Amino acid sequence: MAASAGPEIERLIALLAKLPGLGPRSARRSALALLRRRDQLMRPLAQAMAEAAERVKPCGICGALDTTDPCSTCADPSRDAGLICVVEDDGARWAMERAGAFRGRYHVLGGLLSALDGRGPEALRINELVARVATGEVREVILALAATVDGQTTAHYITERLASTGVPVTSLARGVPVGGDLDWLDDGTIAQALRARRPA
Amino acid sequence: MAASAGPEIERLIALLAKLPGLGPRSARRSALALLRRRDQLMRPLAQAMAEAAERVKPCGICGALDTTDPCSTCADPSRDAGLICVVEDDGARWAMERAGAFRGRYHVLGGLLSALDGRGPEALRINELVARVATGEVREVILALAATVDGQTTAHYITERLASTGVPVTSLARGVPVGGDLDWLDDGTIAQALRARRPA
Repeated sequence: MAASAGPEIERLIALLAKLPGLGPRSARRSALALLRRRDQLMRPLAQAMAEAAERVKPCGICGALDTTDPCSTCADPSRDAGLICVVEDDGARWAMERAGAFRGRYHVLGGLLSALDGRGPEALRINELVARVATGEVREVILALAATVDGQTTAHYITERLASTGVPVTSLARGVPVGGDLDWLDDGTIAQALRARRPA
Repeated sequence: MAASAGPEIERLIALLAKLPGLGPRSARRSALALLRRRDQLMRPLAQAMAEAAERVKPCGICGALDTTDPCSTCADPSRDAGLICVVEDDGARWAMERAGAFRGRYHVLGGLLSALDGRGPEALRINELVARVATGEVREVILALAATVDGQTTAHYITERLASTGVPVTSLARGVPVGGDLDWLDDGTIAQALRARRPA
């Protein structure tokens, strides 16, 4: 692209284009929107990013990103320390929190086992999970991992690693999503939902 | 949304969601991507925004956003000062520059006349355009405005305002876009392309 607006704007566009969901075209639109709303949006966003980059750290207990350590969930006495929900990353943890149905604590793995990407157990926070469960305080470990090959491989591995602790390991149910039309569901989901059918 | 990651991250997500093209979901994905790539992406982007917010100003001649005043195009002696391309905003100017077909200078209006939004001529840089053209240096004014009601209203108004100067005012051609399939084109474009047909 011709350097039509000076290197500063070109650099801003190039960096914005690295955000997920923003291509080169939407990065330009974003840069323009930012330049038009400097005081309301551009400066506050720059500051929010700089502050978050400085202050957000992984929690020493569960690995969740937060500005405090232990994180706000681990430090919250009203959250049940006997229930640990294992998630792939903070995105999955935020999704669980938005659902508002879980009142226990988390363990953020930092990824999934992946033969393709060459990611083995040592790259994930699995030893930390085993150590947490081994303290004896935990009554149940809930695996909230993706229903993909990598997610299920990881779930299987964690279940085996935790077998010796005697703590029950459960997994999120598979089935028809709320609002899901059977026409649009894949065969695997329908088959699993049928096997896991419950009294109506 | 439950404040699951502290107010700093919530604030970052809220600000990111204001960027065009990013909804709440993609803003969360972006925040996560930024937090994962702090040194490679988050800090440089924060700095690029802060710098651009500070240094980018509209050019005193053409109104284009740039870090220098006059802007790099107005200051470039190889750009023909006798040709002025009138554009709605910097996004349109960048698009023209990317096309790489124009070697003259620009005039950025800062919007279009709009009865709906109550935007009149005094809100745009039209007086500045008339003053530039009146200097006698300009041989042609090319209107590169949107083929919308507002764009055409603005083009008509500018043409009338410049009539007394005697400088020719032209407009970008209407027609079939490159790669455009006639099946997908609207009737208006096809009709205009037919009227403006040229020897093959």
